[in-house]
Amino acid sequence: MQDHSQPLLANGIDQPVDFSRADALRAEVCSSSELSFLMEAHDGLSAAIAERAGFKGLWASGLSIACSLGYRDANEASWSQLVDAVERIVDSSQLPVLVDGDGGFGNFNNARLLARKLRDRGAAGVALEDSCYPRINSFIGNRHPLADVDEFCGRLRAVQDTVAGDLVLVARIEALIAGHGMHEAIARAHAYREAGADAILIHSRSSSADEVLSFTRAWQNRLPVVIVPTKYYRTPTCEYRHARISTVIWANHSMRAAAAAMRHVCGRIFAEENVAIIEPDVTALDELFEMFDYDELAEAETRYVHPDKLRQ
Amino acid sequence: MQDHSQPLLANGIDQPVDFSRADALRAEVCSSSELSFLMEAHDGLSAAIAERAGFKGLWASGLSIACSLGYRDANEASWSQLVDAVERIVDSSQLPVLVDGDGGFGNFNNARLLARKLRDRGAAGVALEDSCYPRINSFIGNRHPLADVDEFCGRLRAVQDTVAGDLVLVARIEALIAGHGMHEAIARAHAYREAGADAILIHSRSSSADEVLSFTRAWQNRLPVVIVPTKYYRTPTCEYRHARISTVIWANHSMRAAAAAMRHVCGRIFAEENVAIIEPDVTALDELFEMFDYDELAEAETRYVHPDKLRQ
Amino acid sequence: MQDHSQPLLANGIDQPVDFSRADALRAEVCSSSELSFLMEAHDGLSAAIAERAGFKGLWASGLSIACSLGYRDANEASWSQLVDAVERIVDSSQLPVLVDGDGGFGNFNNARLLARKLRDRGAAGVALEDSCYPRINSFIGNRHPLADVDEFCGRLRAVQDTVAGDLVLVARIEALIAGHGMHEAIARAHAYREAGADAILIHSRSSSADEVLSFTRAWQNRLPVVIVPTKYYRTPTCEYRHARISTVIWANHSMRAAAAAMRHVCGRIFAEENVAIIEPDVTALDELFEMFDYDELAEAETRYVHPDKLRQ
Amino acid sequence: MQDHSQPLLANGIDQPVDFSRADALRAEVCSSSELSFLMEAHDGLSAAIAERAGFKGLWASGLSIACSLGYRDANEASWSQLVDAVERIVDSSQLPVLVDGDGGFGNFNNARLLARKLRDRGAAGVALEDSCYPRINSFIGNRHPLADVDEFCGRLRAVQDTVAGDLVLVARIEALIAGHGMHEAIARAHAYREAGADAILIHSRSSSADEVLSFTRAWQNRLPVVIVPTKYYRTPTCEYRHARISTVIWANHSMRAAAAAMRHVCGRIFAEENVAIIEPDVTALDELFEMFDYDELAEAETRYVHPDKLRQ
Repeated sequence: MQDHSQPLLANGIDQPVDFSRADALRAEVCSSSELSFLMEAHDGLSAAIAERAGFKGLWASGLSIACSLGYRDANEASWSQLVDAVERIVDSSQLPVLVDGDGGFGNFNNARLLARKLRDRGAAGVALEDSCYPRINSFIGNRHPLADVDEFCGRLRAVQDTVAGDLVLVARIEALIAGHGMHEAIARAHAYREAGADAILIHSRSSSADEVLSFTRAWQNRLPVVIVPTKYYRTPTCEYRHARISTVIWANHSMRAAAAAMRHVCGRIFAEENVAIIEPDVTALDELFEMFDYDELAEAETRYVHPDKLRQ
Repeated sequence: MQDHSQPLLANGIDQPVDFSRADALRAEVCSSSELSFLMEAHDGLSAAIAERAGFKGLWASGLSIACSLGYRDANEASWSQLVDAVERIVDSSQLPVLVDGDGGFGNFNNARLLARKLRDRGAAGVALEDSCYPRINSFIGNRHPLADVDEFCGRLRAVQDTVAGDLVLVARIEALIAGHGMHEAIARAHAYREAGADAILIHSRSSSADEVLSFTRAWQNRLPVVIVPTKYYRTPTCEYRHARISTVIWANHSMRAAAAAMRHVCGRIFAEENVAIIEPDVTALDELFEMFDYDELAEAETRYVHPDKLRQ
Repeated sequence: MQDHSQPLLANGIDQPVDFSRADALRAEVCSSSELSFLMEAHDGLSAAIAERAGFKGLWASGLSIACSLGYRDANEASWSQLVDAVERIVDSSQLPVLVDGDGGFGNFNNARLLARKLRDRGAAGVALEDSCYPRINSFIGNRHPLADVDEFCGRLRAVQDTVAGDLVLVARIEALIAGHGMHEAIARAHAYREAGADAILIHSRSSSADEVLSFTRAWQNRLPVVIVPTKYYRTPTCEYRHARISTVIWANHSMRAAAAAMRHVCGRIFAEENVAIIEPDVTALDELFEMFDYDELAEAETRYVHPDKLRQ
Repeated sequence: MQDHSQPLLANGIDQPVDFSRADALRAEVCSSSELSFLMEAHDGLSAAIAERAGFKGLWASGLSIACSLGYRDANEASWSQLVDAVERIVDSSQLPVLVDGDGGFGNFNNARLLARKLRDRGAAGVALEDSCYPRINSFIGNRHPLADVDEFCGRLRAVQDTVAGDLVLVARIEALIAGHGMHEAIARAHAYREAGADAILIHSRSSSADEVLSFTRAWQNRLPVVIVPTKYYRTPTCEYRHARISTVIWANHSMRAAAAAMRHVCGRIFAEENVAIIEPDVTALDELFEMFDYDELAEAETRYVHPDKLRQ
């Protein structure tokens, strides 16, 4: 949880945290030999909670942010609305945030503008997928046209030329989901690596991890591999370790947990016309006040408004 | 859930919904002899869920919106950030939304500007409390200075002169919480009624409803009474009916349910390094796609992009 | 100039002004037999000034808004940033505002979402052009790919199905600028009319009006014609009347006037290291305070904070 | 003008510009023995123009930003709307930007949040004035209540504890304008210096500089002095040099130049029903395209979309 009273520091080093956050994400995704996990966040509350649970990095999910805003995951939210949501996520924890940047919201110019703005708001990385604008959620329908490889590589290069070093750039491959097969996926991975990607996110909506594991065997870790086991959730994590996958993204589970709980609680309250029965199921206000450090406000008030009390 | 393809209508009447929403809230809060319930919402997702649960109106809670944004409920979020959050709530359901406007974010001029903007974004009502700017959450600390009665009445009159008819204006009395006693609370209720309030929200942080029920006995329903039983949640609802209270606000329970569930799920995922075990506890993606009417996108694509398919 | 203290009314009719504004724009563009003029505005100040100069309607120019925001006119500003800019323009005058919506910021779904949001913020109309996303300013380069006719008609139909009656829909034809010739332009005009456009904007970057006048002769006013004589500015206005053109848009001249004046004044101040010499060239503060009705603030303060003074 | 294709650098040093900008402002305001000048900017266009005119720093004026947004300078614009406007100013030049932060939009907590956000968006400094929220423009009315000295010092200390080193903090004294006299002004300057201010802005609405010059004589440059000669504009600049004033702010002259020009041009166009006559008075589009580096877009398109053309 963020210390509201002091400039953000990381690791005791006297450096603004934004740089440390990009470094931290790079360490998790690109350098570590350990399997890393990124937890989805879609707003300040989910970010603060994921940090407290122990996660070392966050995934600012496009789908989850769209759902929380009441938009559909079809580029309905504007790029600047995404950026504003990311700012709240960044401000609510000290964790590095990898942002789901869809395809970059247009061409190379839109993509590099998005990346620059994400960097300025404190994001640590951005994942760009090889889809066309406007895109639709990968789990919907069957007609996802893939971006031309060269055109998408241009987006990646434009982003790297703009924010290299400041943001980890993850290239997300939709070839398997779009039904183009493993050969195409591998060819794209090579191209995206050459275009400057720091890591490859291979996406799949198969209910088994076979597709993804085939990819990793063929790819041979030429760049670190990131996966999103939303549909093939039954796969034991040891298989990912065995395949030397770098990073697993739990891509939407906080939002879906919130939805389930809100539905349950709303249903109960509506039926009972009372909240007494659900009180044990909801977080106490005092815990929320503690999570967001309301005490710091009181201390700061003493320090800045009534300093005489400190001297006594 | 909003129909994304058509102008919003209410009750089959060919009227833009925003006017119907203010009318609908007025009917719930001011005209009905039934006890009404407003469910908290803090974003599009919570609004859509509350509507589906059956609620007839929403409470756009300042505390919950602050928490979801990662701000503290101390006027950290700006008035325009509140307005943007309300827009997402309004757009995600067809329900009337009563907005927690704190004290109006300043003086009479800030209050009427806020009210105008809330109306323009489709809110149905605004609750203004007799606090000073910046305020702090009513459940925190013990030093809440009350606004001067005449000054606060000026805020109410300014709002009514600006948006009368378009927004239900609820005057929220913090006198009991600030420790000023029942006499002051009743005196303020009279003053706020004279200043044009449509209803009185009497706030209390007592763990019993006695305070609030004393108020209703003394007040004699000169204006409809709205209550927020967050702290005195054990009170049976029949007591509110017996006291002829107009409206009960379940003020933050969706957000608190979401927080509890996200904490639980994050903890499990972090410990297990896997999501298989929590999959039954989270809403399926298909249910979210249905809630936000993704099918309409496919239908609309046929209608607008491939109309030839319709003719076949 | 907006009356800050009262709900906006138009023409003495007790109707919210937003509906009247759409009606007013429709009257200017679609119904009047007189030639109408829309003046460019890019922010609140330019809107207030254009109203005071006597204009009956405003053009919220994409180019001018981009310039004032420091973006390039290449879909760098997001659709929601455009909507926010339009809100400031709408709030700063009582005039109907026709918004330059580029191509709708994507496909049919983005276009109808944009239109809905523009309506909600009080715009009176939207002009959509048959370009692809992201587009680039019409006066830049020579490679503007046109949208497929059917695809663009889908955007128009989607907008009409969403906001029909609430917004005037102007279909802007880029065929002449893209070098596709008159035949294509006329064919597109027919298609756009059939798709539900309320008026046709025929764009040209020729330095003479011949192209546009050829169009009007061939088109025979099947729908009202709107023109933008930025490049063919030397044409006498009587020719437009003679051609029975409906509306002329002065598309960017306030922004360009502002740029010229700021450049001149900045240069003088920098050279002189003093402002005395340019004081006669700049608007007095008192005139700005009068334009934005600061007196109303003082009156309202008396009314709402010191009403006792009124009674004396 | 910003290079859109590369990370912003300053002075050829390979450092992100935001840090260099704060250093650059500190050098201008605090370290230089030369008299410095800051030019007002209120949007991206005015910022780009001021940079091209040769200025070394910008003043993001609250009054000018309010006017351009169509708000009154009475804390009608929210703090986040101010921050968004500042972002456009920062992005449109490479100059350091000193932001007019009014009184900080509330108490110590609002002030430090504002400062943190301004830093994150790339501002180089913030000026806080000792007014109460909501404030009104200093040139309006005669009832400006001053903040309590200790309370305001708390705001300054809170800001310094949050962003020290990253933002230049200018304490603005309204005592002379509020009619409290020189003794009070000097006493406040001492207190604000002790609270951590980096410079003192002494404000005056006298039509002569006598007041300000009296202050500088008494103050003896214990901290650098910043002045705003809007009302006493006739004073020769050599007097400021002689008084060893650090920095002169030309506080609203770009906005006022823009207003005058737009009024003139709107009036002419409305009367003439033609733009031919004013064409020489407005900036050519090509100059705007050059100012905002549209050529870079074409070059980048070659680089990122058609790299084969480069190899030929």
